[in-house]
Amino acid sequence: MNKNTFCYQPIGIIHSEHTDPAKSPIQPCYAEGAMGKVEVFPEYAEGLNDLEGYSHIYLLYHCHRANPAPLMVKPFIQNVKRGLFSTRVPGRPNPIGMSIVRLLERQNNILVIEGVDVLDGTPLLDIKPYSHRIDCVQNTVDGWQGEVDDEIAYAIGSRHKID
Amino acid sequence: MNKNTFCYQPIGIIHSEHTDPAKSPIQPCYAEGAMGKVEVFPEYAEGLNDLEGYSHIYLLYHCHRANPAPLMVKPFIQNVKRGLFSTRVPGRPNPIGMSIVRLLERQNNILVIEGVDVLDGTPLLDIKPYSHRIDCVQNTVDGWQGEVDDEIAYAIGSRHKID
Repeated sequence: MNKNTFCYQPIGIIHSEHTDPAKSPIQPCYAEGAMGKVEVFPEYAEGLNDLEGYSHIYLLYHCHRANPAPLMVKPFIQNVKRGLFSTRVPGRPNPIGMSIVRLLERQNNILVIEGVDVLDGTPLLDIKPYSHRIDCVQNTVDGWQGEVDDEIAYAIGSRHKID
Repeated sequence: MNKNTFCYQPIGIIHSEHTDPAKSPIQPCYAEGAMGKVEVFPEYAEGLNDLEGYSHIYLLYHCHRANPAPLMVKPFIQNVKRGLFSTRVPGRPNPIGMSIVRLLERQNNILVIEGVDVLDGTPLLDIKPYSHRIDCVQNTVDGWQGEVDDEIAYAIGSRHKID
């Protein structure tokens, strides 16, 4: 194997109510009320200590059901082809997904989470705490996503129909 | 190989002014003015289209110089042992690093970036656009990091001495 290949093994499994990719919310901000659980394998449970002090966490995971996408792709919320790395489309050269979810409770090796946009059974690679100081960047310019109206983005992103 | 092993190949290399881990800023918010370049391998350059509309991007990368850390670890900015997943310590079971950096310019397959806390030569795994709507979560509770005064966190995190 190429020495520049990096191999990772899951540290747990993400459980959610989402089993059909076509019906799943595309981002946590469109998944209000969608509950889930992170099952961290027992050998890593000690590493979850102190996480319960955080209201939000990053989940990094392997998008196990994503098909490879071309380098120019139509994102979910706009009918225009965009460069893949300017989108969050899951089928990437390295299909690492990232979601910021609300952490409600920790029960030993289980995390109860809300605002879940992740498919059931997704292999978990890492957890990082969300910190306002580090992660909430103010006054950003948001490229093509900034062109999409909030209400339209919500309707498409949450898989609700627009009335 | 275990079928639950996920292997990724780098899509590029991150170039920075940081060669000594002990002297590198620990987060982009403590790395103001630190310049760098992302060299995306030419075969992926097309996927960078439309990224130039964004002021900030996430870099996901393999922490190639991190030593494995125990599950309870002292973070950089506090002299208390904490659960590994409640920290950003790079030596993780899957050593995937994540930084939000400012995107200044795209020149074909090169991204000029600022606020760089990444070590020179780090293998790049993925790029995602930073979007206020998705990524800037308001009113978070920030666990043990919230206990550390902003000024102290900056002094330690930027590797400046406290006067």
